Amino acid sequence: MGTSDPAVVLLSGGLDSATVLAIARDEGYAVHALVVDYGQRHRHELEAAKKLSEEAGIPFRVMPLDLRVFGGSALTDDIDVPHGRDESEMQQDIPVTYVPARNLIFLSLASGFAETIGAKDLFLGVNAVDYSGYPDCRPEFLTAFEACANLATKAGVQGQAFTIHAPLVNLTKAEIIQRGLKLGVDYSKTHSCYDPDPQGRACGTCDSCVLRRRGFEAAGVPDPTRYSA
Amino acid sequence: MGTSDPAVVLLSGGLDSATVLAIARDEGYAVHALVVDYGQRHRHELEAAKKLSEEAGIPFRVMPLDLRVFGGSALTDDIDVPHGRDESEMQQDIPVTYVPARNLIFLSLASGFAETIGAKDLFLGVNAVDYSGYPDCRPEFLTAFEACANLATKAGVQGQAFTIHAPLVNLTKAEIIQRGLKLGVDYSKTHSCYDPDPQGRACGTCDSCVLRRRGFEAAGVPDPTRYSA
Repeated sequence: MGTSDPAVVLLSGGLDSATVLAIARDEGYAVHALVVDYGQRHRHELEAAKKLSEEAGIPFRVMPLDLRVFGGSALTDDIDVPHGRDESEMQQDIPVTYVPARNLIFLSLASGFAETIGAKDLFLGVNAVDYSGYPDCRPEFLTAFEACANLATKAGVQGQAFTIHAPLVNLTKAEIIQRGLKLGVDYSKTHSCYDPDPQGRACGTCDSCVLRRRGFEAAGVPDPTRYSA
Repeated sequence: MGTSDPAVVLLSGGLDSATVLAIARDEGYAVHALVVDYGQRHRHELEAAKKLSEEAGIPFRVMPLDLRVFGGSALTDDIDVPHGRDESEMQQDIPVTYVPARNLIFLSLASGFAETIGAKDLFLGVNAVDYSGYPDCRPEFLTAFEACANLATKAGVQGQAFTIHAPLVNLTKAEIIQRGLKLGVDYSKTHSCYDPDPQGRACGTCDSCVLRRRGFEAAGVPDPTRYSA
């Protein structure tokens, strides 16, 4: 608290990273948002990320990285996004919306960016409670990444070790929403849907929409999401 | 030996990665080259990588990733490449040609690519003997990365663990060259210089040229590099 140290926040434009942005700012960090344009199907997410950064008055950097070159995910390839699954189905297997090595790649990019601006603190909005079973959202991955990044980089080797902050990792979606609302996050400006309509309205039935919608219900607050149906 | 398993080789077009490509092929892997176009100053390196892949008759994928968005290195920013340093000077400090988190980012991309093609073996040409003091060329980083990638990815979680192969890590530059020549590598087609002239000829005096030139001398074989001076 009270620090004005620079920090990098990986901002997707979704509910979780918008909350993390508010947390990092509340803790006093001089936040730089890193937005990765990875060719994701849900382009509206990117617009949300830019607007969230602009409204917060913080610098942001967009890194284009076309993961469609690799494909292999419903978010970056010609694979249908699943709809209408409940949470127990989501936990059974790693879904087709998994993007190979996404958080590993994003945190690596964030480490490189952090070095160039002298930041030691990296924030990201991963969550291992109400989530889609992605391996790169688990605390054991984050711990391993922190150790790895500190061996990989000049900053780490020279004693300016990185700290990976994942303040949402053990919260339910409802707790995340409650935390964000206290910090003034306007969730109507966030975008979580994997499969929005051309107007950017959420489908309401992809895994991400289901988790988000149930989060608002469980938090007992109105859901400001614009749904297509 | 004798495997025809798919493998990803991070190919830069330089002497080291060309040797690794030959080693992986010699071990029988079905090699897929991954070439990262990171906006590097020495663009001729990319052309060399493409030609090496084409001549080897292996598939290659070029991933554009403009690290000039971050900058912070003589290879990606308006910072002069140092010339005329000897090996003891190179070892004193991490030089300005260090690209923040480069091998961390490249291995992360290679992990994502490997997942999409079902490869479990990743090869890269890092070397911790005749090198420029980059932290991300050391064995302890590679060990940490392997563990991290196996926690981050679907492949790792589902028991198809990645193995990081760095067959050059403990060799001198002369030993690398001798190994490559035995495998038929044509080093005239590789490009190592950080600061080539417009015709792609090597400067002969940047750290990369110095290490390469002394490697040929120590190996006692003719240096096929085209130098500008």
